[in-house]
Amino acid sequence: MSVLQGIVPPIVTPMQPDGQVDYDSLDRLLDHLLNAGVDGIFAMGSSGQVAYLTDAERDEVIRRSVARVAGRVPVVAGVADFTARRVIEQARRAADAGVAAVVVTAPLYALNDTAEIADHFRMVAAAVDVPVIAYDVPVRVKTKLSNDLVMQLAAEGTIVAVKDSSGDDVGFRRLAAANRAAGHPIDLLSGHEVMCDAMGMAGADGLVPGLGNVDPAGYLRLWQAVQAADWTTALVEQNRLNKLMEIAFVPQGRSGDAGGIGGFKMALELLGVIDSATMPAPIAPLSDADRDAIRAILAEVDLLS
Amino acid sequence: MSVLQGIVPPIVTPMQPDGQVDYDSLDRLLDHLLNAGVDGIFAMGSSGQVAYLTDAERDEVIRRSVARVAGRVPVVAGVADFTARRVIEQARRAADAGVAAVVVTAPLYALNDTAEIADHFRMVAAAVDVPVIAYDVPVRVKTKLSNDLVMQLAAEGTIVAVKDSSGDDVGFRRLAAANRAAGHPIDLLSGHEVMCDAMGMAGADGLVPGLGNVDPAGYLRLWQAVQAADWTTALVEQNRLNKLMEIAFVPQGRSGDAGGIGGFKMALELLGVIDSATMPAPIAPLSDADRDAIRAILAEVDLLS
Amino acid sequence: MSVLQGIVPPIVTPMQPDGQVDYDSLDRLLDHLLNAGVDGIFAMGSSGQVAYLTDAERDEVIRRSVARVAGRVPVVAGVADFTARRVIEQARRAADAGVAAVVVTAPLYALNDTAEIADHFRMVAAAVDVPVIAYDVPVRVKTKLSNDLVMQLAAEGTIVAVKDSSGDDVGFRRLAAANRAAGHPIDLLSGHEVMCDAMGMAGADGLVPGLGNVDPAGYLRLWQAVQAADWTTALVEQNRLNKLMEIAFVPQGRSGDAGGIGGFKMALELLGVIDSATMPAPIAPLSDADRDAIRAILAEVDLLS
Amino acid sequence: MSVLQGIVPPIVTPMQPDGQVDYDSLDRLLDHLLNAGVDGIFAMGSSGQVAYLTDAERDEVIRRSVARVAGRVPVVAGVADFTARRVIEQARRAADAGVAAVVVTAPLYALNDTAEIADHFRMVAAAVDVPVIAYDVPVRVKTKLSNDLVMQLAAEGTIVAVKDSSGDDVGFRRLAAANRAAGHPIDLLSGHEVMCDAMGMAGADGLVPGLGNVDPAGYLRLWQAVQAADWTTALVEQNRLNKLMEIAFVPQGRSGDAGGIGGFKMALELLGVIDSATMPAPIAPLSDADRDAIRAILAEVDLLS
Repeated sequence: MSVLQGIVPPIVTPMQPDGQVDYDSLDRLLDHLLNAGVDGIFAMGSSGQVAYLTDAERDEVIRRSVARVAGRVPVVAGVADFTARRVIEQARRAADAGVAAVVVTAPLYALNDTAEIADHFRMVAAAVDVPVIAYDVPVRVKTKLSNDLVMQLAAEGTIVAVKDSSGDDVGFRRLAAANRAAGHPIDLLSGHEVMCDAMGMAGADGLVPGLGNVDPAGYLRLWQAVQAADWTTALVEQNRLNKLMEIAFVPQGRSGDAGGIGGFKMALELLGVIDSATMPAPIAPLSDADRDAIRAILAEVDLLS
Repeated sequence: MSVLQGIVPPIVTPMQPDGQVDYDSLDRLLDHLLNAGVDGIFAMGSSGQVAYLTDAERDEVIRRSVARVAGRVPVVAGVADFTARRVIEQARRAADAGVAAVVVTAPLYALNDTAEIADHFRMVAAAVDVPVIAYDVPVRVKTKLSNDLVMQLAAEGTIVAVKDSSGDDVGFRRLAAANRAAGHPIDLLSGHEVMCDAMGMAGADGLVPGLGNVDPAGYLRLWQAVQAADWTTALVEQNRLNKLMEIAFVPQGRSGDAGGIGGFKMALELLGVIDSATMPAPIAPLSDADRDAIRAILAEVDLLS
Repeated sequence: MSVLQGIVPPIVTPMQPDGQVDYDSLDRLLDHLLNAGVDGIFAMGSSGQVAYLTDAERDEVIRRSVARVAGRVPVVAGVADFTARRVIEQARRAADAGVAAVVVTAPLYALNDTAEIADHFRMVAAAVDVPVIAYDVPVRVKTKLSNDLVMQLAAEGTIVAVKDSSGDDVGFRRLAAANRAAGHPIDLLSGHEVMCDAMGMAGADGLVPGLGNVDPAGYLRLWQAVQAADWTTALVEQNRLNKLMEIAFVPQGRSGDAGGIGGFKMALELLGVIDSATMPAPIAPLSDADRDAIRAILAEVDLLS
Repeated sequence: MSVLQGIVPPIVTPMQPDGQVDYDSLDRLLDHLLNAGVDGIFAMGSSGQVAYLTDAERDEVIRRSVARVAGRVPVVAGVADFTARRVIEQARRAADAGVAAVVVTAPLYALNDTAEIADHFRMVAAAVDVPVIAYDVPVRVKTKLSNDLVMQLAAEGTIVAVKDSSGDDVGFRRLAAANRAAGHPIDLLSGHEVMCDAMGMAGADGLVPGLGNVDPAGYLRLWQAVQAADWTTALVEQNRLNKLMEIAFVPQGRSGDAGGIGGFKMALELLGVIDSATMPAPIAPLSDADRDAIRAILAEVDLLS
């Protein structure tokens, strides 16, 4: 019944030094993840720098991802836009491209109340042929989806899952309890890379870790341990991954979008998975010092020799 | 040299009861404003509910506005989108449609620092054949453009004007002083409907009042008084307009987007300028009680008998 | 009937280089203001660095201020504290010291709703023998007093005035209109130094300008013009004061409390009104470069030769 | 070496129906906790409604707590106030009363930068004879203590522990890693009642759960399991406690301070530990329906029959 569970990396969008999407590197990234055994692919999320891509690029990344994955695991796609009617246009194109579900945020720029936000999700669900996953990312859309709203949308079948990037772990745990009490109508996926053992204990059905681009095998080992309730192993793996996560904090004095995703892209370049750590304009590249520091971290956790 | 000064209403986008854009009503709204003598038209701003329109609708509203205005005054258009490369796509279409300038916000959804935001504006200015007006609307994009950033963009010629909807009147006054000290490189337009006399004293070069949709003649009288430094007349007119502005506060317990713009649209319907006060889904219509209260306010200020 | 109207500087609290309150300088500051003809004195506001003084110091500053003013104008005092029962203790001491009113903020640290905030003001008003002025300073207490709440407290006689430091000039203008419509139950005083001409047009009953410490005569001239509806003169004086206000923006890269109040204190030291610009620990002094820049601004507006 | 580890409930302050502190109930609450075997007592935290008590009441609650505990475990006390010099006055009285450490927040009301906040803690540490614990509670003081700041204060010996109520679990986990890497200079205590198993995995040295007032034995069992790395037992106990935690969410439509602490107090009244669930004015009592719902939850987790 579930659309999406387990380890679902939100893929970065590789770019050539001139800023164009690098589809060969995208293929290699997908292979890197699929070979590791991931359970799904989330394209066009925040890690995918969806905000910086044109509609044509978004569509093409989705098409290429679906093609490369070739049905082995579900591909879901972010369809971030201002409001429902615009989201629907994107979502229909994503559905045509073969995604298993679309990932929808609260409205942007608009100033809506809770009833309008609920209707926003309902409009999209009614107009699109694939299921809707709610994407709770208040740091970007400036709206937190309340547990009451999520459970209402879950109960009525508007959404099939939540991708939680809210940073509100207490809220997530209460949501997991509410979801269990309601018969588990939806899947709950957490984006908190450094707390995945804890999110497993809290009852997450899956993880969407940006850092999973870099070390999918690590997250798969962690998730296997979570599934087996082998918390000690989960904890050991999490602590190893948390050392790796420091690549996201290497860039100092940089913007929110430059630092974390920049660290992931640089690591992937250093690992030879993608050709270039290029970020979309106007985001400048990381420094050579940052590159060296990231290389050292990769070596420390034995991803590079 | 100026692209935009004086009274420039940010037009609402009339809609049919089924939610489709009502282009006949749009034409009548433009006539209503042009007949009153406005100095420019701002399409696809927040009052135009830009967040709720598809790209095709945005483009068509701009085309129709340019056509109806037929060169009598400049038409400028909002091209709100996540980041520069997406903004540029919209801005080029708007430029092709004949706008005199495009109105550009800080990035949305993206997490950028000041240097990246400056480059965002520079990317748009470099890629588009019409001038760029910066749109400072932190309540929606969650970023306040600092005076230092604005003056830097002004000095280098990246922007020709600012449309200030920040609510930071103190900042606006300091910006006006800085702009004067720099030789007035840009025009400063304020969106504060209820403080236009004061914004005139502060040194505004023009006004972009949402309420100007309803009573353009009032704002023109106010602006004439400001131009003549006849502050007493300006104050009297402002106080009259402020009574009218209460139409925006009639809807209680409604969302930010339902209340103010809903009040403007309802007034325009009651005045016979547009056919329907319909708002885009998922925003529900105002109540009958709200309609009656708005009618009473229109009568109180002698716009309705 | 009014407790407080006109020009009411929120006095800074002079300090010796060792951080102790400098009462001789306080006397000279009060003389400086009274000689200029101010209409009232507000001690222990944000400009008075109330947050940094012990209760004993707060009480003594109030006592000394009341003594020096000697009934020539009303002295009101801030009694900032967490919640009502603590505020009442301070307010009673201030009342015993002879203040004409106490200035009370919304609760701090506490997480209250509007009904509780209303009762907070009611508890203070019921327990203290002098009138209560509401102090709306959301940048510090993180709560904005809504116009509905203020007008309710006004109608029932809980408060006699509002000291508005909210930065919400649009809200202030609507409050002034609501207050007029209700028969002017309370006085409205604005703290916006650079918009006093506009606040006069909006209907302010008085001003509480921090910059009034430095140039009380300028604000008195401005206010006289406002009273006479001589807006042109008001505007000219405001623009002169706004040049002076740049002293508050001289310190770059400093905290909110270091910059503005630091600028006022430095100017007062340079003018010879107080002995030292010392700020309370842990706030470091302004730099010599800042001192020179402030001196230059004072000269530019002819306060220093 | 550690001042505070293990289970340290932040005690509520029992009150009589007239709002006076109920010291007999306080004694019974302390006995309830000590008999369960808690490792420490934290008086005058947010759960203790420190914001609503006068200095005399704060002091007396601390004195009575120290006396009743009689050295069996450390008693630490919150000394919340605006800035360092005021905090020091309170902290010295608390030290005289015999507390093992004082718990100090970032400045309130003041607008300080990071360097000033660091000096704020240094001023208190230098002036007080007992160790300083940093209290990170941004929901109330509106400042988040950064990990860099905390580790700096830790390295130099300014603070001996952090009480984390920030809700930033990711940040807490990174802080725990940084603290380990630095040789564990300080203890890290988490206030997240519903994530204590996870906080144990993250490396917490102790817990300060408000809900621990109600069920100290449950948290002790949980902590024993954490100490033994018996995560399965910890998880089972946490899930039981999370059912109990719903007492904090029973009150709907109430303020932040009314709901959670109100739920704790009501449960303690129903359990017969304290005489009355009275909250300090202006906070109204919970409803009878809330009382019944809380009773039902207590029965569900077998704390009441």
